[in-house]
Amino acid sequence: MNGLYLADGILTYRTDLPRPQPGPDEALVRVTLVGICSTDLEMVKGYVPGFQGVLGHEFVGVVEESPDAAWHGRRVVASINIGCGECDVCRRDGPEHCPSRTVLGIHNRDGVFAEYVVVPLVNLLPVPDDVPDETAVFTEPLAAALRIREQVKVWPTAKTAVVGPGRLGLLIGQVLALAGTEVTMLGRREASLELPARLGLQTALVDSLPDDSFDFVVEATGNDAGFAHSLRLVRPLGTLILKSTFAGHSRIDLTKLVVGEINVVGSRCGPFAPALRLLARQEVAVQPLIDGEYPLSDGLAAFEHAARSGVRKILLRP
Amino acid sequence: MNGLYLADGILTYRTDLPRPQPGPDEALVRVTLVGICSTDLEMVKGYVPGFQGVLGHEFVGVVEESPDAAWHGRRVVASINIGCGECDVCRRDGPEHCPSRTVLGIHNRDGVFAEYVVVPLVNLLPVPDDVPDETAVFTEPLAAALRIREQVKVWPTAKTAVVGPGRLGLLIGQVLALAGTEVTMLGRREASLELPARLGLQTALVDSLPDDSFDFVVEATGNDAGFAHSLRLVRPLGTLILKSTFAGHSRIDLTKLVVGEINVVGSRCGPFAPALRLLARQEVAVQPLIDGEYPLSDGLAAFEHAARSGVRKILLRP
Repeated sequence: MNGLYLADGILTYRTDLPRPQPGPDEALVRVTLVGICSTDLEMVKGYVPGFQGVLGHEFVGVVEESPDAAWHGRRVVASINIGCGECDVCRRDGPEHCPSRTVLGIHNRDGVFAEYVVVPLVNLLPVPDDVPDETAVFTEPLAAALRIREQVKVWPTAKTAVVGPGRLGLLIGQVLALAGTEVTMLGRREASLELPARLGLQTALVDSLPDDSFDFVVEATGNDAGFAHSLRLVRPLGTLILKSTFAGHSRIDLTKLVVGEINVVGSRCGPFAPALRLLARQEVAVQPLIDGEYPLSDGLAAFEHAARSGVRKILLRP
Repeated sequence: MNGLYLADGILTYRTDLPRPQPGPDEALVRVTLVGICSTDLEMVKGYVPGFQGVLGHEFVGVVEESPDAAWHGRRVVASINIGCGECDVCRRDGPEHCPSRTVLGIHNRDGVFAEYVVVPLVNLLPVPDDVPDETAVFTEPLAAALRIREQVKVWPTAKTAVVGPGRLGLLIGQVLALAGTEVTMLGRREASLELPARLGLQTALVDSLPDDSFDFVVEATGNDAGFAHSLRLVRPLGTLILKSTFAGHSRIDLTKLVVGEINVVGSRCGPFAPALRLLARQEVAVQPLIDGEYPLSDGLAAFEHAARSGVRKILLRP
């Protein structure tokens, strides 16, 4: 089959990949649409040095084979962490932190930038008929945005900022606004603030605001400058959510963190069913984030496009 | 009067200081015993570049002058943050985070390494007769240790570690153990683990333990190596408390923080009344931490002693 394959930090489009074979309790899913996320871009830059295989984890597809016939022909999305199911961590916290987990297209398991992917049945979620592929493909990043609400109390009166109005930041901003919260999207350039403004969010240039301006700040840039601004902007006793994966080490001013008694919370994967519910209810605008769509065979060009400054979601169609 | 005065990063013993004049709603306290804390040592190293004045914030004393006669002759300790009392922060969170606060011996207000200090009446707390000065002088750092229990839920079944078995770490370890929690004190050298073991706490060398060993880790070293170990040792979804003030910037691996969804909480000053209650009930051993006592006039020698590796509490008697 065809797919985008990462090996030794080099991404290639291959036409010779074997079609994956589902094991017991797994489904074979024909991939219909995928999204490129910042983690994919980081991985191509070498963020997960050991990974070798088909890249990608944001997708929608149709079940072609399954031990449970009820799934046949169903349009699905799927959560991306697969735990051992037997360790203390799996029992207590679920698969996301299992030490021997695999993660679709990220860790020890082929991903979705291909014609087919194999996924455990327990990870599947059916997509309602009235949610188009171009919307359903945002389920994974929207779930990641919703993770924040599982971790901390988002109080409606909190002055809230999202640093980084990009492909993930805009989902986070919209999710937080659903609490009735006043959300300001912060970017480095005026152009990056146009879409958030169109989506009804407040906007500001990140360096135009004084220190300690917000109760609640979400860092969604994944770069050191974004982190430094986020820490600068959160008020003493405030909460700072780290939503983006950082590569390497960052130089942090821990003094403000201690003296200001800041609460910093790392945040990763989130719940799929609530994300799909919000998409079905059209509570979160996702299609305005789409900046381009490519056939899978043009995947390398799509990656170049996705890596350009200011570009949000790029889709690939196998 | 006599006192230890910090100016331009240089600490001197001076005999020409004016006796401070209490304002309205303030008491003049004759200082009877003070403790040197790591923050004092950091300040002499230049951690708060702008500070000029009498250093010190851990003390016990006797009220000599007060607008309220009920305080006359009372033995007291005092909380160290003085807020404006009128801003939103003071009203919502108390004086500890008031943007225009002063802090005894730390920020814009003379401290306690002198014969006399002036303190607002609202900051005073009477010391019970059966709590000796050598115990009461630990109220401030013990309050700082208790602050953790105001900020996060300390669950009794959590595997808990304190990195840094020093003057503050040993108070934190004892406070956490009072929840019935299994607390392990981690140090770099065997010699540093003798006192924690005598105090009934578990001990281990910090580099002898594998990654992700603890649910709950308190960083109490204030150095980058201690922070790196703390982040290494806390498990995914665990909590890391930063209890020590760091000077400058630290290089942090934010990847573990995000992927492991770690919760990092900065922690500073705590509640005095509960600290004094624990001291009165003899629930926390403090006098074994005393490694030396000097007259105030030998303050510079006392500072050298306090800065030596492995030394815990050094007291000064004005």
